[in-house]
Amino acid sequence: MAPVFSSGPAAGGPRSLSKILDAARDVLSAQGYPALTIEAVAAAAGVGKSTIYRWWPSKEALVADALAEIFRAEEIPDLGDTHAELRHAVDMTIDNYANEDMATSLPALAGGLLPHPELMTRFREAFLYRKRENIAAALRRGIQRGDLPHDLDIDLVQDIWAGTILYRRLMTGAPLGTDLAEHLVQLVTDTPPLLPTKKQECAQ
Amino acid sequence: MAPVFSSGPAAGGPRSLSKILDAARDVLSAQGYPALTIEAVAAAAGVGKSTIYRWWPSKEALVADALAEIFRAEEIPDLGDTHAELRHAVDMTIDNYANEDMATSLPALAGGLLPHPELMTRFREAFLYRKRENIAAALRRGIQRGDLPHDLDIDLVQDIWAGTILYRRLMTGAPLGTDLAEHLVQLVTDTPPLLPTKKQECAQ
Repeated sequence: MAPVFSSGPAAGGPRSLSKILDAARDVLSAQGYPALTIEAVAAAAGVGKSTIYRWWPSKEALVADALAEIFRAEEIPDLGDTHAELRHAVDMTIDNYANEDMATSLPALAGGLLPHPELMTRFREAFLYRKRENIAAALRRGIQRGDLPHDLDIDLVQDIWAGTILYRRLMTGAPLGTDLAEHLVQLVTDTPPLLPTKKQECAQ
Repeated sequence: MAPVFSSGPAAGGPRSLSKILDAARDVLSAQGYPALTIEAVAAAAGVGKSTIYRWWPSKEALVADALAEIFRAEEIPDLGDTHAELRHAVDMTIDNYANEDMATSLPALAGGLLPHPELMTRFREAFLYRKRENIAAALRRGIQRGDLPHDLDIDLVQDIWAGTILYRRLMTGAPLGTDLAEHLVQLVTDTPPLLPTKKQECAQ
């Protein structure tokens, strides 16, 4: 997506923009978010520090735009199969956070921006809104097909999915494999595997 | 709990330890995690910078110990009531992350420590293990009472609870009120409110 933190179009035009965002991701992978400096990104991109500061007010803004460019938030195709579409949604989220730079930098960025509501809104615009709207569309198709309850709490489902995945990646280190993906989908499509006893009651 | 990152006991003894950790929390609240410096904490505590460095190898370690001291992870009393005990567990987690310093600093700390397995283990020791063991004990009581399925995935339940709460606090800004707490408990104790259609099927 178009950079949301850049004060846009730079002296050097789009080519220089893309070179700087590439360089920011390279430095991020090599040094980690806390150690990343605008100087290092400028050197890696072969531009002056002042060029970067003309476009981005801060390191946070630059890293946010660099990560937003590779953050998956695509539309989920209508497959006529609710389970497959929701699995696409969960896999997309797992894919985003499997990237260590994304998993470590996004929460640090959000923490730094939280006290600044205007910046936080732009952060959500870059990383949440489009992804959530596209996943909501898939959930609404599932409701229309009668596969999901009509009063499903679509926002809560998405908070549970993204929250569980990010928490595992960042905090507990538990695996993000197929088992987790299926559990998270079934939490919505089926009496969840958390609750086999209830499921057995229904089957009797 | 006892500081897990401190190389303690300090020259100044426990009184000086507690003064430094208090000062670290004050500076954290006033300036936020990214801006916090060891210098500022030393000045606020009235000790030399070198005293702090004798105990803690880094800013990350100092902040981790300062937050661990106020992180709720208490044993959940046996109330003979599974719903009430799980609500205690969820409320404890909400309480931890309702604290803005905790919600913004913990993920940033975890992100910084993730590439260092030994430090990450100490981080988990300070913030996860005791809380998870105490909540697991409450979940196991629920299983013994027959209120929860015998093969409940206790780790996944805890990842869903903490992940959803932290994600809302840090990323989406959605409320952490009674509604959320009840939803998260009922996700485990009952056919969840996410799934009213399934519930109706069972009732027929």
